[in-house]
Amino acid sequence: MVFEHSPKTRDWMKRVQAFMDEYIYPNESTLDAQMAAFGANRWQVPPILEELKEKAKAQGLWNLFLPESDFGAGLSNLEYAPLAEIMGRVLWSSEVFNCSAPDTGNMEVLVRYGSETQQERWLKPLLRGEIRSAFLMTEPEVASSDATNIQTSIIQEGDSYVINGRKWWSSGVLDPRCQVYIVMGKSDPNEAAYRQQTQILVPANTPGIKVVRHLNVFGFDDAPHGHAEVILDNVRVPAENVILGEGRGFEIAQGRLGPGRIHHCMRLIGMTERVLEMTVQRLMAREAFGSYLHEKSVWEQRIGEARVMINQARLLTLDAAYKMDTIGNKAARAEIAMIKVAAPRMARKIIDEAIQAFGGAGITDDFKLSYYYAQARTLSLADGPDEVHNRTIAKVEFAKHAPRPALAH
Amino acid sequence: MVFEHSPKTRDWMKRVQAFMDEYIYPNESTLDAQMAAFGANRWQVPPILEELKEKAKAQGLWNLFLPESDFGAGLSNLEYAPLAEIMGRVLWSSEVFNCSAPDTGNMEVLVRYGSETQQERWLKPLLRGEIRSAFLMTEPEVASSDATNIQTSIIQEGDSYVINGRKWWSSGVLDPRCQVYIVMGKSDPNEAAYRQQTQILVPANTPGIKVVRHLNVFGFDDAPHGHAEVILDNVRVPAENVILGEGRGFEIAQGRLGPGRIHHCMRLIGMTERVLEMTVQRLMAREAFGSYLHEKSVWEQRIGEARVMINQARLLTLDAAYKMDTIGNKAARAEIAMIKVAAPRMARKIIDEAIQAFGGAGITDDFKLSYYYAQARTLSLADGPDEVHNRTIAKVEFAKHAPRPALAH
Amino acid sequence: MVFEHSPKTRDWMKRVQAFMDEYIYPNESTLDAQMAAFGANRWQVPPILEELKEKAKAQGLWNLFLPESDFGAGLSNLEYAPLAEIMGRVLWSSEVFNCSAPDTGNMEVLVRYGSETQQERWLKPLLRGEIRSAFLMTEPEVASSDATNIQTSIIQEGDSYVINGRKWWSSGVLDPRCQVYIVMGKSDPNEAAYRQQTQILVPANTPGIKVVRHLNVFGFDDAPHGHAEVILDNVRVPAENVILGEGRGFEIAQGRLGPGRIHHCMRLIGMTERVLEMTVQRLMAREAFGSYLHEKSVWEQRIGEARVMINQARLLTLDAAYKMDTIGNKAARAEIAMIKVAAPRMARKIIDEAIQAFGGAGITDDFKLSYYYAQARTLSLADGPDEVHNRTIAKVEFAKHAPRPALAH
Amino acid sequence: MVFEHSPKTRDWMKRVQAFMDEYIYPNESTLDAQMAAFGANRWQVPPILEELKEKAKAQGLWNLFLPESDFGAGLSNLEYAPLAEIMGRVLWSSEVFNCSAPDTGNMEVLVRYGSETQQERWLKPLLRGEIRSAFLMTEPEVASSDATNIQTSIIQEGDSYVINGRKWWSSGVLDPRCQVYIVMGKSDPNEAAYRQQTQILVPANTPGIKVVRHLNVFGFDDAPHGHAEVILDNVRVPAENVILGEGRGFEIAQGRLGPGRIHHCMRLIGMTERVLEMTVQRLMAREAFGSYLHEKSVWEQRIGEARVMINQARLLTLDAAYKMDTIGNKAARAEIAMIKVAAPRMARKIIDEAIQAFGGAGITDDFKLSYYYAQARTLSLADGPDEVHNRTIAKVEFAKHAPRPALAH
Repeated sequence: MVFEHSPKTRDWMKRVQAFMDEYIYPNESTLDAQMAAFGANRWQVPPILEELKEKAKAQGLWNLFLPESDFGAGLSNLEYAPLAEIMGRVLWSSEVFNCSAPDTGNMEVLVRYGSETQQERWLKPLLRGEIRSAFLMTEPEVASSDATNIQTSIIQEGDSYVINGRKWWSSGVLDPRCQVYIVMGKSDPNEAAYRQQTQILVPANTPGIKVVRHLNVFGFDDAPHGHAEVILDNVRVPAENVILGEGRGFEIAQGRLGPGRIHHCMRLIGMTERVLEMTVQRLMAREAFGSYLHEKSVWEQRIGEARVMINQARLLTLDAAYKMDTIGNKAARAEIAMIKVAAPRMARKIIDEAIQAFGGAGITDDFKLSYYYAQARTLSLADGPDEVHNRTIAKVEFAKHAPRPALAH
Repeated sequence: MVFEHSPKTRDWMKRVQAFMDEYIYPNESTLDAQMAAFGANRWQVPPILEELKEKAKAQGLWNLFLPESDFGAGLSNLEYAPLAEIMGRVLWSSEVFNCSAPDTGNMEVLVRYGSETQQERWLKPLLRGEIRSAFLMTEPEVASSDATNIQTSIIQEGDSYVINGRKWWSSGVLDPRCQVYIVMGKSDPNEAAYRQQTQILVPANTPGIKVVRHLNVFGFDDAPHGHAEVILDNVRVPAENVILGEGRGFEIAQGRLGPGRIHHCMRLIGMTERVLEMTVQRLMAREAFGSYLHEKSVWEQRIGEARVMINQARLLTLDAAYKMDTIGNKAARAEIAMIKVAAPRMARKIIDEAIQAFGGAGITDDFKLSYYYAQARTLSLADGPDEVHNRTIAKVEFAKHAPRPALAH
Repeated sequence: MVFEHSPKTRDWMKRVQAFMDEYIYPNESTLDAQMAAFGANRWQVPPILEELKEKAKAQGLWNLFLPESDFGAGLSNLEYAPLAEIMGRVLWSSEVFNCSAPDTGNMEVLVRYGSETQQERWLKPLLRGEIRSAFLMTEPEVASSDATNIQTSIIQEGDSYVINGRKWWSSGVLDPRCQVYIVMGKSDPNEAAYRQQTQILVPANTPGIKVVRHLNVFGFDDAPHGHAEVILDNVRVPAENVILGEGRGFEIAQGRLGPGRIHHCMRLIGMTERVLEMTVQRLMAREAFGSYLHEKSVWEQRIGEARVMINQARLLTLDAAYKMDTIGNKAARAEIAMIKVAAPRMARKIIDEAIQAFGGAGITDDFKLSYYYAQARTLSLADGPDEVHNRTIAKVEFAKHAPRPALAH
Repeated sequence: MVFEHSPKTRDWMKRVQAFMDEYIYPNESTLDAQMAAFGANRWQVPPILEELKEKAKAQGLWNLFLPESDFGAGLSNLEYAPLAEIMGRVLWSSEVFNCSAPDTGNMEVLVRYGSETQQERWLKPLLRGEIRSAFLMTEPEVASSDATNIQTSIIQEGDSYVINGRKWWSSGVLDPRCQVYIVMGKSDPNEAAYRQQTQILVPANTPGIKVVRHLNVFGFDDAPHGHAEVILDNVRVPAENVILGEGRGFEIAQGRLGPGRIHHCMRLIGMTERVLEMTVQRLMAREAFGSYLHEKSVWEQRIGEARVMINQARLLTLDAAYKMDTIGNKAARAEIAMIKVAAPRMARKIIDEAIQAFGGAGITDDFKLSYYYAQARTLSLADGPDEVHNRTIAKVEFAKHAPRPALAH
């Protein structure tokens, strides 16, 4: 057991931190101003984002997220994790380093499972940050946390596949730079449960795609990235766009989600650290009923427990990253599930208490606390609700013991 | 102890319920559509609101909230409470019955403490629903939960008072019908703590008033009502606009807040009942992993506990209303504080679990759950944060025992 | 809605309170001393108990618990509830008023369902407080919360029934005055689920009964009442000892449990009120880090929330009592389930915080807090675990909506 | 970051585990039987304990707890931690390895601060496991969590110190092998707050020591170790018995508590792991309402969250051990405080849910769950209540920011 980062990691942390200090924090207000200047038409890219991407790429702070691959910076999950935490303090900053969802997950899928043609056409522009992508899995009509419920059909007709269905939470579709979707759907409902699904690449301009609307999250539109509802109406793509092969969509989905969860959790931890700092500063600046707020014992308790929760969540996430690196994503599935439950819960509690510390200011946009809350709340649902992850963890515990005979009734 | 409403109350409930069924529920989508049609300019009144107000007034379902007064319907707090619950199922409906905050609180203040002139000029149009009003108390620069922190100055100069300060969470200011504010501020910082404050009536068009911006609540603008930040820059009003007398602002504030809290809590209970119904329906309509969601024991537990929480909150709120009616707002201050802590907490938990039940749909606008959550979260801060109310309750408990000598150090 | 007790109830409360003040509180230490004097042989009745019973009986404070019956004092559940709360402040006091479990439940069963012979032989001595009784339902080998799991057999052989099985949590068996058990068991496993069970009266001295041991509750033996494990080995009793008829045991069990739960919950509330008082006194008497403990805001929050929880639990329990009185135990089953979940949870939280307030003293026997905790913790299991009650509540909620078609798979 | 133990540590773990498997688990019932055979006179040492100590010593599994010292096995805190976890599965086993409180803390004090004479007379027999010791700090009359409250006086008179006061929670005093106490008290109330206290060695047979009684913990006597209340009435010991010097008691106390907390927390984690295993086995063996308990989703959630909590607590504790080893106990004070808050809370929750899983069996002695609960509950108080530790953590957070000017009022 060693509870400090390696010199290599510490060096990367220093570089990312320096970039944050020089380019990201000073431009938080720039980005807000550029977004505000767009007025009602918010699905545009604020220029500062592309400017900063060039700077990050020039410094080699680029594609840091890809483990076991020559395409990225060659960092392990454990090495990348603290970098994601640093980025998480400014949510939009991960895009600057070409490390933002859902592109990261999509790139990973293409690195692992994409054909050479697919990699050439989609992966490389993504790696260069020239285009963006989306992942279409969740459906409004069914409980998508049980992947067997998915209804979108992906049916082969000659050299093509024809896709019909309705998806939502299709994050990034509204970004004008988004050029390709990975769509998951059912190719054969008569196959064994885990062989029914297929994943396929669909260019964003394919006829039959209809973007119905954007979805708000607690009133926030998350522009310019955003989340869309999309109808796929007889969308036809070449058969070669299938990833890995028909019926292997579930297998890809399993492989896809581990690293993304680490990233989400580490970013949440960074975001929450920032919130805790803001909270402490607020408490130390305000007085009521004869003393500063931070001198009141109820806040001592809350701050003490917040620190406990953050440190625990960070250690758990780093441990999961370590396990992914050493025993693989599949063997580490319980660890991945654990952080997916723990980190958003931790963040929600601490941000909620921050809101209480800030009073009325906590629910305005002034300190972004309500936006952070919305993000954290979303992550108890996105990539699977807590209930499904707890189920995964529990099943691993149960499996340590002898199986039970089926009940007679 | 009798745990059912009187025939009189049941009759009123029936009438309000019938109005809801006939006019409110069928027009929920109408109002949404009218608001949507306004586009970016959302500080307008959707016509359906004024139409429905006429119908409610015609049926005598009007000003139901005013206890012990000839101005309203003559209902006690206990009689009004279940009506507020019914209204709470559609948040905007309380305005249709001229029962919405902050007008209700302002009308109560004017009924109790207003001079005849003040009543003639402001109270009567408010009672008729012709104008709306705002209450300006909270300030961005200080912890306003400790009222002694308030900094806005209200200084007499000859026949006028001159007001300077910055207020926010001034709900209703942005409503085009809003014609008068009640402003609380300090008239004499050298007076005893509870004699420093004054409340004064300020016409909305008085020179020196600057509406800086509207405030979002978790990304929602709460239009057309909304919450504003307002600068008062040498705002001058006649001395006769002072309510009750200089230095009596704190006294008015105390009297004002009790009934408003009952209303808020009862509406929250109605809103949460609706959320629970929606949740149950959703659970019964969705399946995952081989059974309907409502058949899963984790949801049995949550629904069971939600019912316990709602019923407890309702009983506590009705008990507080009863105490207010029988022993008065001041003697019932602990009971009022209790519901102010309990009801929003209950609502937040149940709405949060509803969001979990709805999955991705829970955080969109489709079922308004995230909006309801924002409302409930706000109410753990508005009219005083939980911490201040718990302090009030605790002080009543401590007062049951002999006081302690001051510590030497 | 009326939130105060009737003059009749208030009069009863005054009488019970006066008895507590005159006879119970002054004898708490007497009883402790008498129990201590017994040494290792703790299954004896401390004489003070019988002395006080005579006094209570003489004052007519006797059998207060029996609703709708000529046998008792003729109080409704709602009228009895606040009396049970007063008794709950000294746990053993309810026996002084002949109002203690499991006798109360057994007497109710005999009043409602007992034959004249059974009433003559067992009910009347119980009503006079001459004997005590036990109820044998729970079994160590199965999850008894699902009554269909019960395995003890009660099989007719000629004019007798023969009973075989193992029971535990047989409270009162160890009391030397205990003369009769009501035993629940399976008479016909091939009947419909709710017709398989039978309840039968078994004299305590019947051959084949073997009291295996007493059971501690968190290290406490609960002497002299206590809880036993009992083997029934070919225990033979006359057929006339069956209550109500073979196969009707489940029906009796359902009817039995409602009032008992009200009693438990009201006593818990009384116990918790006392704990809250003790806590406040302790906080006001101790200082640390420069101020009295009650001046620290963390304790303001806890005391505030404790008061909220107690008042809510009391109102919910009184509401359940009211419903039982007005619509009957069966129609009020959700309300009964609600208090069974809410009251122990409330008590556990407040007692646990009291322990924290008392520090080391909280876990000793000095203030009985750990004993109270054990009692409250037990009540989240006894008479059915919380999970089963939440299930009951949830089923009532689900039943408000249209049933769902069975899933195909 | 490396999230696995070193080969050296793994080797020690294997050896301790093997000893547990061979000698401890098979003798759990032996020890229970020997204790039971003592009858009422429970302050005796069950022979199996001494037998097993010899075996452990022979295997070199002895004094494993002493970091940075030639006296013990030479393990760091991080290396010892997983061994303490393994021992924690059988609470009494740590004594077998001469690793049990309060001897461990007392030995550490003597190693660090004891004079050569003191080490010769007391440390060496303790290290050999020939005698046991006690630590007398907490007092019944004051909130001892604020050490400045301590009232016992330790006053020099010539070549002696005279001690007067009343202590409790003096663990181990009742053990017949206990031969020495370390007593903390006030030598000079006029000194600066942290120079008022002195620690002194008091032989157990010194005249003036009166053991008043033993203290139960949730009804358990913790025999043969136990906790005593002790009066010190003009107890006179030679001046050379002072440890480190008059006025340095607080300094010693600070140094003493860090490692002890690590040990407690790791043992708690081991105990809780065992409880989780027992829970899973129980859930998999019992059925209710048509399925095994472990198949019910509410238990999936609880087991999932239990695993998250345990793993988080373990990582946090190992991290604290690492920090103690690398930056020292003082610099790691926040980390030590964190585990002291987190580990007992984790254990309490999981054991409480285990009790719920076991139903009635959960609160008996059969599975020791209620005893484990009592142990875990105690540890939210012992060595300082959670509130004091949270205060420590919070102060470290506040210190990261600029200090605030004192408020004028």
